[in-house]
Amino acid sequence: MPKTLSGNAVVGQAGGPTAVINQSLVGIIQEAQKYSHIRNLLGARHGVRGIINEQFFDLKRQPENMLELVAATPAAALGATRDRPDKAYCERIFEVFRKHDVRYFFYIGGNDSALTAHIVNTVAKDNNYELRVIHVPKTIDNDLLVTDHCPGYGSAAKFVASAFIGDNLDNRALQGVKINILMGRDAGFLTAASILARQRPDDGPHLVYLPEVPFDIDQFVADVQAVYDRFGRCVIAVSEGIRDLEGTLWAEKVSVLRQGNLERDAFGNLQLGAGTGSMADYLAGSLRTRCKDIKRVRADTFGYLQRSFPGYYSEVDAWEARLVGQMAVNYSLDADRDGSVALVRLPSTTYSVGTKLVGLREVAPETEPKTKVLPMEYVNEARNNVTDNFREYAQPLVSDLPKTGWFEQIANLEML
Amino acid sequence: MPKTLSGNAVVGQAGGPTAVINQSLVGIIQEAQKYSHIRNLLGARHGVRGIINEQFFDLKRQPENMLELVAATPAAALGATRDRPDKAYCERIFEVFRKHDVRYFFYIGGNDSALTAHIVNTVAKDNNYELRVIHVPKTIDNDLLVTDHCPGYGSAAKFVASAFIGDNLDNRALQGVKINILMGRDAGFLTAASILARQRPDDGPHLVYLPEVPFDIDQFVADVQAVYDRFGRCVIAVSEGIRDLEGTLWAEKVSVLRQGNLERDAFGNLQLGAGTGSMADYLAGSLRTRCKDIKRVRADTFGYLQRSFPGYYSEVDAWEARLVGQMAVNYSLDADRDGSVALVRLPSTTYSVGTKLVGLREVAPETEPKTKVLPMEYVNEARNNVTDNFREYAQPLVSDLPKTGWFEQIANLEML
Repeated sequence: MPKTLSGNAVVGQAGGPTAVINQSLVGIIQEAQKYSHIRNLLGARHGVRGIINEQFFDLKRQPENMLELVAATPAAALGATRDRPDKAYCERIFEVFRKHDVRYFFYIGGNDSALTAHIVNTVAKDNNYELRVIHVPKTIDNDLLVTDHCPGYGSAAKFVASAFIGDNLDNRALQGVKINILMGRDAGFLTAASILARQRPDDGPHLVYLPEVPFDIDQFVADVQAVYDRFGRCVIAVSEGIRDLEGTLWAEKVSVLRQGNLERDAFGNLQLGAGTGSMADYLAGSLRTRCKDIKRVRADTFGYLQRSFPGYYSEVDAWEARLVGQMAVNYSLDADRDGSVALVRLPSTTYSVGTKLVGLREVAPETEPKTKVLPMEYVNEARNNVTDNFREYAQPLVSDLPKTGWFEQIANLEML
Repeated sequence: MPKTLSGNAVVGQAGGPTAVINQSLVGIIQEAQKYSHIRNLLGARHGVRGIINEQFFDLKRQPENMLELVAATPAAALGATRDRPDKAYCERIFEVFRKHDVRYFFYIGGNDSALTAHIVNTVAKDNNYELRVIHVPKTIDNDLLVTDHCPGYGSAAKFVASAFIGDNLDNRALQGVKINILMGRDAGFLTAASILARQRPDDGPHLVYLPEVPFDIDQFVADVQAVYDRFGRCVIAVSEGIRDLEGTLWAEKVSVLRQGNLERDAFGNLQLGAGTGSMADYLAGSLRTRCKDIKRVRADTFGYLQRSFPGYYSEVDAWEARLVGQMAVNYSLDADRDGSVALVRLPSTTYSVGTKLVGLREVAPETEPKTKVLPMEYVNEARNNVTDNFREYAQPLVSDLPKTGWFEQIANLEML
């Protein structure tokens, strides 16, 4: 067995925060304290940006109680970034790494971050600098390749499912049509999680519109009318990433009509938040104008609540997020192993997971598909709903949902 | 002491649901079971609409465990309504009341519901029909007259404060400008509750825009620029009810430009949800276009989550909502006492409340002001923020907020 590389380590967090990204961070910190090959553990403030600015937290000197509190806190405790290092940026990173004898780089993030990790790793190799780079997965979108599911998704899915439990009760109490716009740029996993809210046969969401299925406004109006005629109400889950038949984002389409300029990040990703409110209003307005006998229509955009509502997370997700962080350090003990930590669902009658280390390029490949989308086996024939078999995949990741009570029987007044 | 009137009772729930409106309902049910003057307790399905349709739940025959589960469930378990009974509607109500010997009417709702209760009461008196009408307060807006605060507000305020704790951490992790649109048509209490999220000196919300203060878009842009220049980020709370200098709602103003028709309920209240998404996008777009060096701007509308997120409520609020329901039955023991149950904050070093029964017309007066607004003593001089003295009023109603942890000290790299 080769000798374990010894030196300092840097850990960073990147991309949109999640409810459990700090669980992974604390997993890395606590595990690093157990081994001598990591001398100091430096937490880069705002990801790669903190490296080039030489701004680090000293993570080996954090009291245990504070670590546990940080672990239970949403959003990235180190600060995050959407920077994508170019050649010059990477030269600066290596200057800093060399200067401080950094030999391990743990980067917690999505596929963009896996790509960043890969670029840094490549430059390290080009410079003949011995460095271990381990990517720790994190997204609420659940769109990462290879891993069975992604830490962060279960908690966001729990928030969405819980929100729909409440919203469905609200809609039952004061009947009408309710549209909720959900996060998930290209993958419908989070939008699909809304169906976990269904308890009674007539519970919403009654309709689910995914980024994987072209969105037709005429069909939408007809779908809602049919549900409303049947139940006298309708609860609808709509992904912020729905596209028209030509592939144009509806948020962009509505925004171009109404809003003007939209924002893209350094990766060319459209900042969908920009137009979702207008899209929500547009969909609501279309129903109000075109449906029969439907007066009450309301639309909300849950937005960042889905990823950062404090104290609200899935126990399973929190545990797994901690595990992938711990395993990143564990894998770092084996010399010359770079990669991304993936979750593997084990063949078992009850839900259980393991991990494996996979190549960075498997998670951030050069060719399409670069991310995962919701498999069509979970979409109904009319392509306006998610089928109940999705529960088998998603329910174990979400843990327990809030219990609710209701009255069932109408009184027989003659009997009183 | 006059003889207690004996007969059946009807209870109904009206208006927008809250997280604890079922606490009041269960308070009424459990207390009614203790006294013999209420023979049967009928739960009207969808408020007054359930009365004229003779659709009732038999509430004396509900098992205790189910009652407790219903109490902890958001949204109106009986179903709610926004119907405002006219003369003909009231005739039907009395037909039903007479037919079933209904002598007590408990109506849980806001000021619209107090008015409904008053109208029903007036018609009863005109018809020489002996009836006790007791209104039980409920709003998330906290805009009811007389009562120190309103059951439902504390839980909605807790949701808003919690959401801002998370959103502020999110904004700290990935810096930019974040706008959150909050409920509260004419009263800024719920928007003001966002300031309970502040823990560190530079925590958001950094700016708070209330319905009580005219909203000037130029001033808004300047305010945000100033905060951004100072902190490199900005978290903003905006009421859905902000109006321009001429008194026009911004949601309407933006919607008229972009959207077309808006919806009003039977009380003439604008359904603000209709235009809030567009307003959110408009505000975000204005900052993106007009501010210097600000790229990341995002806006969300929390919407119904504020009133119906399951399992999320203030302990104090839940307790008080139960209490006002219990007291409604208690007050009904005294013959010829109609009214609305109000909360009174007792003079005490620690927070404690009592109740009193006040006239229906005090809560639903014929002349303005018909509702309460946020007192100006809680608004800063620049009128773009809520001052810390608001905590004294609001914090006890919200109970505990989620605890969060963070790293403080940047490492001295020379020392490692």
